[in-house]
Amino acid sequence: MSMPTRNGLEQMDRMDPLRSFRQEFLVPEGIVYLDGNSLGARPHAARERLLSVLDDQWGNDLVKSWNAHGWYRLPEHTGGSIAALIGAEADEVIVADSTSVNLFKLLIAALRMRPGRSEIVAETGDFPTNLYVAQGVAALLPGISLRIVDKAMLSEAVGPDTAAVMINHVGYRSGEINDMKEISALAHTHGTLIIWDLSHSAGVLPVRLNDCAVDLAVGCGYKYLNGGPGAPAYLYVSKRHQETIEPVITGWMGHVAPFEFDLDYRPAAGIRRNLSGTTPILSLAALDAGLEILIRAGVQSIREKSRRLGDAFILLSQPVMDEFGFSLVSPHDAERRGSQVALSHPDGYAIMQALIARGVVGDFRAPDTLRFGFAPLYNRYIDVWDAVAQLRAVMQNQEWKRPEFNRRQAVT
Amino acid sequence: MSMPTRNGLEQMDRMDPLRSFRQEFLVPEGIVYLDGNSLGARPHAARERLLSVLDDQWGNDLVKSWNAHGWYRLPEHTGGSIAALIGAEADEVIVADSTSVNLFKLLIAALRMRPGRSEIVAETGDFPTNLYVAQGVAALLPGISLRIVDKAMLSEAVGPDTAAVMINHVGYRSGEINDMKEISALAHTHGTLIIWDLSHSAGVLPVRLNDCAVDLAVGCGYKYLNGGPGAPAYLYVSKRHQETIEPVITGWMGHVAPFEFDLDYRPAAGIRRNLSGTTPILSLAALDAGLEILIRAGVQSIREKSRRLGDAFILLSQPVMDEFGFSLVSPHDAERRGSQVALSHPDGYAIMQALIARGVVGDFRAPDTLRFGFAPLYNRYIDVWDAVAQLRAVMQNQEWKRPEFNRRQAVT
Repeated sequence: MSMPTRNGLEQMDRMDPLRSFRQEFLVPEGIVYLDGNSLGARPHAARERLLSVLDDQWGNDLVKSWNAHGWYRLPEHTGGSIAALIGAEADEVIVADSTSVNLFKLLIAALRMRPGRSEIVAETGDFPTNLYVAQGVAALLPGISLRIVDKAMLSEAVGPDTAAVMINHVGYRSGEINDMKEISALAHTHGTLIIWDLSHSAGVLPVRLNDCAVDLAVGCGYKYLNGGPGAPAYLYVSKRHQETIEPVITGWMGHVAPFEFDLDYRPAAGIRRNLSGTTPILSLAALDAGLEILIRAGVQSIREKSRRLGDAFILLSQPVMDEFGFSLVSPHDAERRGSQVALSHPDGYAIMQALIARGVVGDFRAPDTLRFGFAPLYNRYIDVWDAVAQLRAVMQNQEWKRPEFNRRQAVT
Repeated sequence: MSMPTRNGLEQMDRMDPLRSFRQEFLVPEGIVYLDGNSLGARPHAARERLLSVLDDQWGNDLVKSWNAHGWYRLPEHTGGSIAALIGAEADEVIVADSTSVNLFKLLIAALRMRPGRSEIVAETGDFPTNLYVAQGVAALLPGISLRIVDKAMLSEAVGPDTAAVMINHVGYRSGEINDMKEISALAHTHGTLIIWDLSHSAGVLPVRLNDCAVDLAVGCGYKYLNGGPGAPAYLYVSKRHQETIEPVITGWMGHVAPFEFDLDYRPAAGIRRNLSGTTPILSLAALDAGLEILIRAGVQSIREKSRRLGDAFILLSQPVMDEFGFSLVSPHDAERRGSQVALSHPDGYAIMQALIARGVVGDFRAPDTLRFGFAPLYNRYIDVWDAVAQLRAVMQNQEWKRPEFNRRQAVT
């Protein structure tokens, strides 16, 4: 790509095969929203679905909705839609709990599937909550330890004592894509199970769980899946493990016959045994409603636009980076980059606050990283131009030095 | 209470100090809804709040809502409202996960607080998912076992090797109230921790956690709290345990500083450390919106009406029970009964289906129990008359023998 011009970007928007999808989302006036990698925008379909759930289902049909409106099967139904985005079969994915809880369940399940092995291997670039959860598992189970290594050391760290490797498909900070095929194969060489976290890749780039012979995976619903704040998460269990995996949090929704009210737990067949308690239906319905848009748009088309958006951002911001002392954290090569571009700067926090005050919404990740996420269904090429123009203005005017941009908030 | 007449019940409705609350809920036309002990009716306030979250918060303000609209603190805020209903301090309750997941967390935490003790004691009348979860904990941790005993045997079962007793405040089937003070004291005599499940009592009868020196508790949001299908659950940790309890599923939302993205888990101070992942905000907001109604009505007034509704139901249905072979499962004495009346009958499943077809919605609990729940904020005294009249008609006409009422559905 050569250095983009404003006219050229406008032209790309006009030619964009995905341009009609923007109208399916609420995109606030006057905002360039580049934080869909943290909280995806609200699909209008989610609002419509919620109204139907509130009025017709919960409101009018009340408890019979569990059967009549498919609430009971919604975790599997929504899981089936997600499966279509991540290269899995429909009955290999189910929506349940949060990403943290799902990871907890799958880590322990993996340890049980590899008895006698004592180690979980993770990498330093993993999203911290994943490391925290694994620390909790290691603290809970006698003889189990967690080994956190730099990604370059993974192949040395994994060995015959490794029960599971857990790793993010796309790094939350760098946006770097980890090679799913290669790292899964590395684990399998040692008989180790591989657990992928798809939170930063599902819905925005092709994921090929089955092609890569992945064992287990988790992911969140509120980023590129546009499921709404704190949307329920999902988990994947390869069909070859579904009848051997032992549920850990053995709640009634994973029971083979929850409404027989037996005193003894017996796991359901298939993916459903991985449920624990009752799924929050309002949040689940919002997630379910938005997935259809992604499937209709097609992950391949989304990925192509995502790469172009990222390339344009890097090209346009390079002079600003050079002049004002930013470093590019993300890979320059679109092939290795997910749908975000991260820059680092010692004053990153205040710069991001000043940028948000100018209507360009990205986010900050301590200690020094500014993240700009691209959601191709509602972000335009021209948004990239505007974002970089505002970044330049913030730096030229030294706006980030203002005291109000230097007060930390609870959520950054 | 003497045998109620239709006129007398209408008169009680006219005099009912809670009568204006019915209009705050969507109560479908032509339905007598006696299943608020399974799924509470929809408060209009929940619909209004959801629209605001969908449009103004998620829709327009997007990710900044975590700070600007208090999403980040909503688990504690909503927990504080629930605390007011269950005799706890505001900072002793937090909304998180499902009841099953919360029970899993607290059972393991309790075992860690009583190192060297190997047993969890539960009772046979407990809601089966609680038993399943405890079975899962026992299967996970070496040397830990679960002992399930009849309630009458509790005092013999609890001893110096019991780490925790878990028990429902109100039995899901019988509706019988377990004595919180007495059973908590029994546990404490042996240095055992007590874990109460408040799912069938919170919001409909006074709960006095602190008065009874309770250690830990869980409860669900979708029954008498009217939080919507699969509403997030809550947990209580007495202040005297808050700084010693070790979180089990150590997700980022329970970290002391989640947005510093440290690699090491350090638990937050106070109740917040008991969070794991991100809470589903849409479902949480619906729960939050409805609690204000309960607080405004007052649990004491709700309890008084609840007792009268139950007494009227038992008096009116006694002749039907006698004629058609039902047994009363619930305590006759309102003092010992929660807000439901359960009957048993060998053909209970089909009878309940036939009753639902006549517009009286209760539910069935295998193998033979019909449950009628009373939600005093939207159930009227006259509803009790109508429900019993329809039950009589179903039995007199033998409607339950029709084939369509004998086909089992996924959710009963």
